[in-house]
Amino acid sequence: MVELRDIEAAAKRLSDIVVRTPLISSHMLDEIAGGKVLLKPECLQRTGSFKIRGAYNLLSQLSPEQAGKGVVAFSSGNHAQGVAAAGTMLGIETTIVMPEDAPPAKIENTRRLGGTTVLYDRYKGDREAIAREIAAERGCEVVPSFDHADIITGQGTVGLEIMQQCDELGETPDQVLINCSGGGLSAGCAVAIRAMSRGTSVHTVEPEGFDDTARSLAAGQRECNDMTAISICDALQVEIPGKLTFDINRKLLGPGLVVTDEEVRSAMRFGFRQLKLVIEPGGVAALAAVLSKKIDMRDKVTVVVLSGGNVDVDLFASIQSEK
Amino acid sequence: MVELRDIEAAAKRLSDIVVRTPLISSHMLDEIAGGKVLLKPECLQRTGSFKIRGAYNLLSQLSPEQAGKGVVAFSSGNHAQGVAAAGTMLGIETTIVMPEDAPPAKIENTRRLGGTTVLYDRYKGDREAIAREIAAERGCEVVPSFDHADIITGQGTVGLEIMQQCDELGETPDQVLINCSGGGLSAGCAVAIRAMSRGTSVHTVEPEGFDDTARSLAAGQRECNDMTAISICDALQVEIPGKLTFDINRKLLGPGLVVTDEEVRSAMRFGFRQLKLVIEPGGVAALAAVLSKKIDMRDKVTVVVLSGGNVDVDLFASIQSEK
Repeated sequence: MVELRDIEAAAKRLSDIVVRTPLISSHMLDEIAGGKVLLKPECLQRTGSFKIRGAYNLLSQLSPEQAGKGVVAFSSGNHAQGVAAAGTMLGIETTIVMPEDAPPAKIENTRRLGGTTVLYDRYKGDREAIAREIAAERGCEVVPSFDHADIITGQGTVGLEIMQQCDELGETPDQVLINCSGGGLSAGCAVAIRAMSRGTSVHTVEPEGFDDTARSLAAGQRECNDMTAISICDALQVEIPGKLTFDINRKLLGPGLVVTDEEVRSAMRFGFRQLKLVIEPGGVAALAAVLSKKIDMRDKVTVVVLSGGNVDVDLFASIQSEK
Repeated sequence: MVELRDIEAAAKRLSDIVVRTPLISSHMLDEIAGGKVLLKPECLQRTGSFKIRGAYNLLSQLSPEQAGKGVVAFSSGNHAQGVAAAGTMLGIETTIVMPEDAPPAKIENTRRLGGTTVLYDRYKGDREAIAREIAAERGCEVVPSFDHADIITGQGTVGLEIMQQCDELGETPDQVLINCSGGGLSAGCAVAIRAMSRGTSVHTVEPEGFDDTARSLAAGQRECNDMTAISICDALQVEIPGKLTFDINRKLLGPGLVVTDEEVRSAMRFGFRQLKLVIEPGGVAALAAVLSKKIDMRDKVTVVVLSGGNVDVDLFASIQSEK
């Protein structure tokens, strides 16, 4: 099980590697919420998302023998960039299995950061099977994108920083909203946050059609998504919550929130116009939940994790010009 | 003359009004510079630029009689929004003379924030004369965009925060790069920065064609721009440095830097792709100076003020899709 002290140890491991992204406030968001809103913009993180935290935390703990064989990962793009960047820093070869319809910028960046990419058809192939096959051939490790203690622990440093930074501001968050795919970020953050402030609730935010964690939390057991569903949030599409992550999340999280694609697009426009931040669809879901008031924020302190900013120019421009 | 204690007093006046924008680091920028680069993103400031600082500082010190008559200002857009927002907060009516070709988003936002706009033709009319005429009719104050002690003092809180935040990080900046139009931001910042660290140099950054401050600093006296020049930096176009601001700047600043429009466009692309920040042309000039290495940054700590982010969607998208 992941504990606060594991996350504190990961934070030391990552201290010269990741950006301690700031907590940002916005008077306009405070007005909308009727309370205090603090943004944790992991879009400003190295590689454009929080994923470098878990990837580096895992890769830096491989044995020399494991490291020498390289690693394989599968990812729609942000984990790919995190693994590629961490591998380059540590001198570990990385091979990343990515869907061929992943945002081109994510594929390009993964290569630029030093990763070797293997593309597959998301509607026909099984990325996990492809990755395991490559790993078996080479006798090397697969770096999972969420369901691994070192990944959860690394992502949990976001939650640790949130609590430290709120403390520096003299605030205690009433609730923290976190975008959720497999649940690694929310699990790690929940461990840190709930250990440091039992009264703070942590909520996942997912896109419509991929609300497996919200339904699983309500049901008390892991529920699947229909993988023919379509969402603009390319980073938040998994079939089912992770085993390890859900085991943590079911004990520590409050009810999950769900947002529509239209709410996501609107939040991206708010990001450009009012916040001056570039946030990708899957990175903005929690902000969309705030703007569409999916949870009571009146007189509360609400922290919102903006988990990534890797969006293509064309999609970004097209969303911005809609209104 | 403006002194550090005036800026400290302004910081108290503004403490609940403005965002204490963070200092952000970027490993990629550090690599490019061969040193440490810290960004002060005033694009994340209330109203999307630093201008709210000076505007609120001045308006909040008007006598009740003056305040009751309202105020007039002239601005290409960011000062307009700052004055409009400060006026609304303080219950002071604001009328802003703006060029009719100012970015539509700046005109719209000025109105949304509560300002009454008066548009004029930038190539035929004299905005200062129009503003003074309105002020004379109403017997009210003109809020200048830079050449006033209360404006300089308010903008100087950016420099005060930079020094405080560097201190929190255990750093002392070797140099601070500041976008420059009339010189209010650079003058205020230079007073704070040089009072707190004599060894830190402060440099203005201007677009080609509007390098009046760079030339004035070199000549030791105020030099004019040819106002038929064209630059993408709508926020950085003045005819001549301010009297008050240049009197401060000539004593405290190092040599001024100059960037081309192409360097500005390239820096906006870097902002979107690598920093995930929306920065307007006039707000990104100092970053352009870093990226095109207009100054030695090796083994130094360089602070870069990103002064604003109010850019229209169409221009932003067109610049982003260039490469």
